[in-house]
Amino acid sequence: MATATTPAMKKFLNDPADAVRESLAGLAAAHHDLLRYDADAQIVVRADAPVAGKVALVSGGGSGHEPLHGGFVGRGMLDAACPGEVFTSPVPDQMLAATKAVDGGAGVVHIVKNYTGDVMNFKLAAEDAADEGITVESVLVDDDVAVQDSLYTAGRRGVGATVLLEKIAGAAAESGDDVQRVTALARRVNARARSFGVALSSCTPPAAGKPMFDLPEGEVELGIGIHGEPGRRRERMSSARELAGVMVEAVVSDLQAPPGAQVLTFVNGMGGTPQLELYLLYGEIDRQLREAGLEPVRNLVGSYITSLEMAGASLTVLELDDELASLWDAPVHTPALRWGA
Amino acid sequence: MATATTPAMKKFLNDPADAVRESLAGLAAAHHDLLRYDADAQIVVRADAPVAGKVALVSGGGSGHEPLHGGFVGRGMLDAACPGEVFTSPVPDQMLAATKAVDGGAGVVHIVKNYTGDVMNFKLAAEDAADEGITVESVLVDDDVAVQDSLYTAGRRGVGATVLLEKIAGAAAESGDDVQRVTALARRVNARARSFGVALSSCTPPAAGKPMFDLPEGEVELGIGIHGEPGRRRERMSSARELAGVMVEAVVSDLQAPPGAQVLTFVNGMGGTPQLELYLLYGEIDRQLREAGLEPVRNLVGSYITSLEMAGASLTVLELDDELASLWDAPVHTPALRWGA
Repeated sequence: MATATTPAMKKFLNDPADAVRESLAGLAAAHHDLLRYDADAQIVVRADAPVAGKVALVSGGGSGHEPLHGGFVGRGMLDAACPGEVFTSPVPDQMLAATKAVDGGAGVVHIVKNYTGDVMNFKLAAEDAADEGITVESVLVDDDVAVQDSLYTAGRRGVGATVLLEKIAGAAAESGDDVQRVTALARRVNARARSFGVALSSCTPPAAGKPMFDLPEGEVELGIGIHGEPGRRRERMSSARELAGVMVEAVVSDLQAPPGAQVLTFVNGMGGTPQLELYLLYGEIDRQLREAGLEPVRNLVGSYITSLEMAGASLTVLELDDELASLWDAPVHTPALRWGA
Repeated sequence: MATATTPAMKKFLNDPADAVRESLAGLAAAHHDLLRYDADAQIVVRADAPVAGKVALVSGGGSGHEPLHGGFVGRGMLDAACPGEVFTSPVPDQMLAATKAVDGGAGVVHIVKNYTGDVMNFKLAAEDAADEGITVESVLVDDDVAVQDSLYTAGRRGVGATVLLEKIAGAAAESGDDVQRVTALARRVNARARSFGVALSSCTPPAAGKPMFDLPEGEVELGIGIHGEPGRRRERMSSARELAGVMVEAVVSDLQAPPGAQVLTFVNGMGGTPQLELYLLYGEIDRQLREAGLEPVRNLVGSYITSLEMAGASLTVLELDDELASLWDAPVHTPALRWGA
């Protein structure tokens, strides 16, 4: 069996330049009942799109954060995803093609993580779509409390809240809500969610073939971004209890939820952290949130917005209300999130 | 916030000696609707156990393979899991306590991966349970085609087929099948499944604090066990296409399914391999299985039987029939596998 290249790094790859496309083709092969991959337009689209009369949700961004976003395309969540190269914004043509592919006549909502490239390109695509008569609303996600402004961002970065927002707004769209209502719900999720991440290691983008940044032996980066953007500070590695404390304090102090508020606790792995550690961390965080006066009533534990094989974790806390909880519980069927269906 | 220790290695841990127990407590905190953790007996038990009149399924083994087995306790899969310390067999007392906790009067099936310690301890527990009047059947899982006999095993090792077997036998038990029928189905899954794993890195057990084995720069281990047991050989790292070829050839040549056989393809991450690579690998494997004359009609892609944060993947192919496919599709609700519920 002949192959074009032998990667120098140890990853399951053929030619590193083809990694994103080959992975998306594999996703579509595994989940052809849910989605299709349009290799020409470089988009992932819900299998039965466009759904007539349904508001459609489109998101996208650099690859390397899987399952975000392609793994969330399906019923009750995204209608399309636009994947860029690893840690690189997709281009407006992808976003426009996705918007046209999923528009069922009820409008399209763009879910945009706050990175300068994504924001600019989604804006151009929305203008082009409007010129073609498609109603487009844009929702910006900026839930990361670690730093104000960053390497690729003016203002706060968009991280874990994206997953929760795509689920909740997707449920609203599936239930027949109109584009104003879906947009308002999505903005409500962003407004009520806060996140903070910790990196224990770097990761190696396939095309680069070397670690994205250097994290010395025994140190962790507090407030890391999902592309390795610097956080608040580096510290000596400490216990799960102490790291949970840093995460909880950062998120809770910024969220300022009223005492007794019911929350969804999302403990997210960065890609290389095993489940044994994630659940241990969840236990610490759940306890500390309760000590801080909040009441975790829903949770999500797993690797849903990642940085390739980075070791690390992030915490997202979403202050729920009855409507958000009910939309969270609604059926969903995508490659990465599935229940009630 | 005071802590007992500061781990030398970079993992989310408090005292490494408490890692398994704290992680199980976190699992139970996150999923109290599905399961409870009995810290005295050191077992994870379905929340509504015992279910009167239902055959109960119990599995167990060393920890470090999460979500196996605790993450598969719930409705339509396992009734209890007995987790040992990391990569260490649980003791007979755990297995006996689990058996008694879930016995609903219809008998209990022990699902035992073929490692000498697990086999011996489950045998002792089954004898003790029988003495107490509980009907126990044991099913041995030995699907790994890599090597005959191994570091901790006489005969073949039990790996990925365990996940498929627990799902399918669990569905049969949930539907009301009797203990002979559930046992026969479980044995049928094992007889029709074959697996082969590849490691790209080692992993570091918390209590040891250093890598389990040494894998030189640029080399991979073909036929790795889930505790780092040696495989068939070490080779220079090659492409995903070539590694998929090794995995498919090993599995298909041993399975000897008839041309056109419908199969379930399970591409499993070892813990540290990101989803971008797993789906890329799935695409290669799906194509190569079709070239080999098989027809993948179901699949599972993700990290379900792991070796902590090891980079690597395994392939399990299960030759389906209508009954096995139907039981695979039946509703399941556990922390790690969920659909139709």
